[in-house]
Amino acid sequence: MIFILGCKKYFYTTTPKCERMYVIIVYDVNVSRVNKIKSFLRKHLNWVQNSVFEGEVTKAELERIKDGISRIINEDEDSVIIYQFPLDFMPKREILGLEKNPIDDII
Amino acid sequence: MIFILGCKKYFYTTTPKCERMYVIIVYDVNVSRVNKIKSFLRKHLNWVQNSVFEGEVTKAELERIKDGISRIINEDEDSVIIYQFPLDFMPKREILGLEKNPIDDII
Repeated sequence: MIFILGCKKYFYTTTPKCERMYVIIVYDVNVSRVNKIKSFLRKHLNWVQNSVFEGEVTKAELERIKDGISRIINEDEDSVIIYQFPLDFMPKREILGLEKNPIDDII
Repeated sequence: MIFILGCKKYFYTTTPKCERMYVIIVYDVNVSRVNKIKSFLRKHLNWVQNSVFEGEVTKAELERIKDGISRIINEDEDSVIIYQFPLDFMPKREILGLEKNPIDDII
């Protein structure tokens, strides 16, 4: 029996919730909520730059991330953009200056 | 005779420099350079959120943007990430909270 963390059902049924994708999340939130959203996203994704996280997630994980973000932010004041890509079509990624948190194995 | 701004050669020769693409640029620069980089990127792309710009550019325009960024940033201190996509494969884009600068016609 094989288990894949966070996506065990894959070997039993092909549920769309198991579909994997790549996300880039950028946020612009009030300073009072910056640490909270950063700590939350760090549990699910890779921090790549101030206010930017990236990572591979399942559809179900992304739903949990969106739910978590919604609980943290003030919707009248904060803004979070989520870009989603299928794994077989990732963007070209280029860095000018410092690579603040190298994640060579990601893209 | 038809002209397309910034890409006039298209109707004469199919030069790769005319190839159009979509870019997302996120930056994390020292506060002393924030206004400078913001003003520069505003001339070429759409501001969508604090430290995030998006837009359609030609390959030649992107080279000019990269050159401009390199002249502004301190490479030992600042970081700029450029994500590139072909126009026929754009990411799904979702916003939680405020849409700081709506650009419905972009993605």
